[in-house]
Amino acid sequence: MSNPTALTGNAVIGQSGGPTAVINQSLVGVVEALQAAKGFTGKIYGSRHAVDGMMAGNFVDMTHWPADQLDRLAWTPSSGLGSSRRKPNADDVKQMVENFRKFDIRYFFYIGGNDSSDTCRIVSETADAIGYEMHAFHVPKTVDNDLVLNDHTPGWGSAAKFVAQAFMGDDLDNQALPGVKINVVMGRHAGFLTAASVLGRRPGTNDGPHLVYVPEADFDSDQFCKDVEAKVNEIGRCVVAVSEGIHHADGTPMAQKLAEQQGKQVEKDAHGNVQLSGSGALADFLAAAVKQHLGKGARVRADTFGYLQRSFVGCTSEVDATEARAAGRKAAELATSGIRHGSIAIQRKEGSKYEVEYNRIELTDVAAKTKHLPTEWIKNGNDISEAFVAYAKPIVGALPVVERIEG
Amino acid sequence: MSNPTALTGNAVIGQSGGPTAVINQSLVGVVEALQAAKGFTGKIYGSRHAVDGMMAGNFVDMTHWPADQLDRLAWTPSSGLGSSRRKPNADDVKQMVENFRKFDIRYFFYIGGNDSSDTCRIVSETADAIGYEMHAFHVPKTVDNDLVLNDHTPGWGSAAKFVAQAFMGDDLDNQALPGVKINVVMGRHAGFLTAASVLGRRPGTNDGPHLVYVPEADFDSDQFCKDVEAKVNEIGRCVVAVSEGIHHADGTPMAQKLAEQQGKQVEKDAHGNVQLSGSGALADFLAAAVKQHLGKGARVRADTFGYLQRSFVGCTSEVDATEARAAGRKAAELATSGIRHGSIAIQRKEGSKYEVEYNRIELTDVAAKTKHLPTEWIKNGNDISEAFVAYAKPIVGALPVVERIEG
Repeated sequence: MSNPTALTGNAVIGQSGGPTAVINQSLVGVVEALQAAKGFTGKIYGSRHAVDGMMAGNFVDMTHWPADQLDRLAWTPSSGLGSSRRKPNADDVKQMVENFRKFDIRYFFYIGGNDSSDTCRIVSETADAIGYEMHAFHVPKTVDNDLVLNDHTPGWGSAAKFVAQAFMGDDLDNQALPGVKINVVMGRHAGFLTAASVLGRRPGTNDGPHLVYVPEADFDSDQFCKDVEAKVNEIGRCVVAVSEGIHHADGTPMAQKLAEQQGKQVEKDAHGNVQLSGSGALADFLAAAVKQHLGKGARVRADTFGYLQRSFVGCTSEVDATEARAAGRKAAELATSGIRHGSIAIQRKEGSKYEVEYNRIELTDVAAKTKHLPTEWIKNGNDISEAFVAYAKPIVGALPVVERIEG
Repeated sequence: MSNPTALTGNAVIGQSGGPTAVINQSLVGVVEALQAAKGFTGKIYGSRHAVDGMMAGNFVDMTHWPADQLDRLAWTPSSGLGSSRRKPNADDVKQMVENFRKFDIRYFFYIGGNDSSDTCRIVSETADAIGYEMHAFHVPKTVDNDLVLNDHTPGWGSAAKFVAQAFMGDDLDNQALPGVKINVVMGRHAGFLTAASVLGRRPGTNDGPHLVYVPEADFDSDQFCKDVEAKVNEIGRCVVAVSEGIHHADGTPMAQKLAEQQGKQVEKDAHGNVQLSGSGALADFLAAAVKQHLGKGARVRADTFGYLQRSFVGCTSEVDATEARAAGRKAAELATSGIRHGSIAIQRKEGSKYEVEYNRIELTDVAAKTKHLPTEWIKNGNDISEAFVAYAKPIVGALPVVERIEG
């Protein structure tokens, strides 16, 4: 064995939670770094549907995937191995570790959000407790951009690019046929993705979105209607960005309240997250409220961007893709160089030039915590500041150039 | 005057109806051809918000716009001049023609769908009736692809590309987290845009969409639920494409019925078209029906693609853009070479290589008529044939390459 600190054995990789446009970049990053690692000579298994595949021993052998095929996979949105929202209990994790023993798996890589980093922690601790030597790494992923200790998270940059380009187009559409347009954007607890709606807006113009509501500020339906009315009175139209996670001061998401009011069974996943996406009810409710407020004849439309935000083919941020891949590679490099566990954090270097580094942090530091949009980036409870734009632009990358006929 | 058949005077251009990703290409095509026409030395006015600007004399002078600015505008989605859904009555048209006289406008170009070609016809006939010499041309545009005598219509190719890429991504998403996913696509009377959902699907695989419902086939809610159930039983998941214009055998759109049932005021535009877009109600209704049919625990989600389909920035078909521009140029060339009126039709040449020609047709031949998806392209009332794919692929262009982990 050329590297005395590396474990002899095989590796498994899982992709968990909601897909993103670049989660396959991270998968490929792990695979290609393992293929290249001097100290690693084992098999590289992809687990089908995350923990489900690990419990069932349902693996895909990616050991000898050629570079061109890996590269095509990297640029394919969604989770190529399949995902799962299962939260494994203690028995499930024991079953997983038993399978690891059976398949001689000594490296565990788990790509996902904060629930996934917690699963990674539990797997690592369970293996320790039963004396099964194994290295366990978490690779960050989430369109919500809500992992603590990370400057930002792979997946968010591409989703943000989609949202920015969608709002650019929708604002041009609204200029052509004026009225009120409300768009609901993903984001359960964090407003980063909704905030990205402003990235194509030229400061000091009438470009939309004109109002932005994020979960970090309590939502007031009456004030919302008044905000819209004021903008319509000012410029004759209003484009609005709303997070799916907005809530009144009591904290319960409005989307959840609406579903309950309509007598619908509210779905929760194993982590206790209520289903907010995959329905147009919140957007339609807000449109109806504005319509009633503005009175007859008002043109009010609403769209819910839905799953397109995270899996659309052909709208990937190059920086996001590069970083997602590098984060996967870093995890494999650390694991095969003798580090026992950790999570990879993307952290921005000081200085005016955009540069990041990939640092190991403790699983316990990131697991099951949520980062929020800094409150100083929220203006008047209904807009997003230029400080956010400065933060986001290097990650999202250049947006298409548009030409408006002024006046 | 170098061209004895050309009229001396100015030109006006309007963009009508729903925006598209390439309607500014047609605007720029008209402008650049007028700038280049030997027989034309007048001003080039853009009318603000279509007929509204023509009635009010609200024009933008585009005579001297430089080529680089025109090119940026051409690649900008939505209607740069603004649009309108107004159907001008006889008095409105008289007022327009009076303004044409006042501004010495002798060329009228109107970019729009079949309602717009009818407006163009009325303007031309009104000018004739009062003895005001003027050339009037209609330039085709519609994401619905429903203009008769056209092989296809500018705007559709780009919207179709968006829909195809959206379904590619959403099918990958649904593979990762299996369940039922229903996506509602634009298309009031014609199913061409919904049919584009199949363009990224590999024949002979389990790629979605697995079911496609278009307005050309009567919709049966019970059969729909059974279709979905059968596919779920077969492969464990089901992605569905549904036109917003689907209707039961009585012909009334389901979206309209739902709005009426919910006591909502149903909006109609001046052409009598009921508002179908800008609401998630149809998608949510279909999801609830499937959920009830499949029983507790079924993962059913629904998205409505909404206005993103027609105005998203950064998903334009090159062929669509080229053809939209060429159609605008052709209209200006014909009008300045002495032809009094007409509509430009994009017609495909015979032969295996994809080539089109831009032919003048009579305004009365295209006005207020609707083309439908050929019934032989609809399979079993719930799918789209490969003949449609062969028709659509050259117009939509190459789609991104994706790599799936099989098995």
